[in-house]
Amino acid sequence: MAEGSDDIQALIALMARLPGLGPRSARRIVLHLIRKRNGQMTQLAQLMDNVARNSRECLTCGNITDREQCAICTDPARANGEICVVEDVADLWALERGRAFRGRYHVLGGTLSALDEIGPEDLGIPALIDRIGKEGVREVILALNATVEGQTTAHYIADALADSDVSITGLAQGVPIGGELDYLDDGTISAALRARRSF
Amino acid sequence: MAEGSDDIQALIALMARLPGLGPRSARRIVLHLIRKRNGQMTQLAQLMDNVARNSRECLTCGNITDREQCAICTDPARANGEICVVEDVADLWALERGRAFRGRYHVLGGTLSALDEIGPEDLGIPALIDRIGKEGVREVILALNATVEGQTTAHYIADALADSDVSITGLAQGVPIGGELDYLDDGTISAALRARRSF
Ligand SMILES: [Zn+2]
Ligand SMILES: [Zn+2]
Repeated sequence: MAEGSDDIQALIALMARLPGLGPRSARRIVLHLIRKRNGQMTQLAQLMDNVARNSRECLTCGNITDREQCAICTDPARANGEICVVEDVADLWALERGRAFRGRYHVLGGTLSALDEIGPEDLGIPALIDRIGKEGVREVILALNATVEGQTTAHYIADALADSDVSITGLAQGVPIGGELDYLDDGTISAALRARRSF
Repeated sequence: MAEGSDDIQALIALMARLPGLGPRSARRIVLHLIRKRNGQMTQLAQLMDNVARNSRECLTCGNITDREQCAICTDPARANGEICVVEDVADLWALERGRAFRGRYHVLGGTLSALDEIGPEDLGIPALIDRIGKEGVREVILALNATVEGQTTAHYIADALADSDVSITGLAQGVPIGGELDYLDDGTISAALRARRSF
């Protein structure tokens, strides 16, 4: 056993499976944490435990929150008649960092996929349609990734809302072909949102 | 508050300070963990807490362990009269992965530095000299980084041991100038150890 104890080895193995990390970076991080074990590591363990216990999906929009409904859904100032549909919570975070959007969100949690048997119900699309009437929504912004799957899903939602009288828009310029929202800089994402076009 | 809750924001901020990570990679990891909050995240929090509570430095060699003495210092098969002196626990782990060395270690925890006021006592060099008599050491292998600081420290130790009758060796070929042991592949480090030369 090269690395100190069974727990240390298990910790390195678990860290190495996190996105963007591998065995080498995991070892460096774990050694760093062991050096800072009375401060940073204890704090990190405590925060992870709290977040694991208290995080849940907002019942309305799917955002991550520690309450039944997220801070955006309970903020009356954000009931401006706009709902921004995103694939993922990471995209919601990216849009919030851009500070250009002041409405509410709907997090799909993925894209339609015949292969993976992901249908409209799995993405909360019926719930989205439901919200439109209940929340007096005037505009649905389809802020999906500029990938085949994202755009297929966007078209499906646009079709499903064709009979309602909401205007349906999509992010305009700035999103590169094949690009994923979470990788864009904050300025680009804000520009794309401001220049949104009718879908 | 873009990211879900105060705890989530604090967790991202803390993760972003880990070596090799930044705000973007920390956000991706935290979101991944939130998705896996009942499995991976809880397990990670528990392991970090365990490791933070139980890790300590081996009283003899400075390796990280969960006991008073590490598994290497308590393994009678490794009392072969060889002590390998390394700067850091990461280097010890790297040498163990190479599986070429079957003796014991002495972890300095740094290098001599007038600027940072790190002297021989801070690095446990008197304790190393003490071990040589007590443990019947015949050979001290100075496996320090091929940096100016590492080599200055190696020369200091070689001088301090000049009067004893141990042979003092250093890693030979394979360690590139300016290279750090922890970055070498396992084969290179093993080759350098096997071809060690008299210091
Ligand atoms: Zn919400
Ligand atoms: Zn030890």
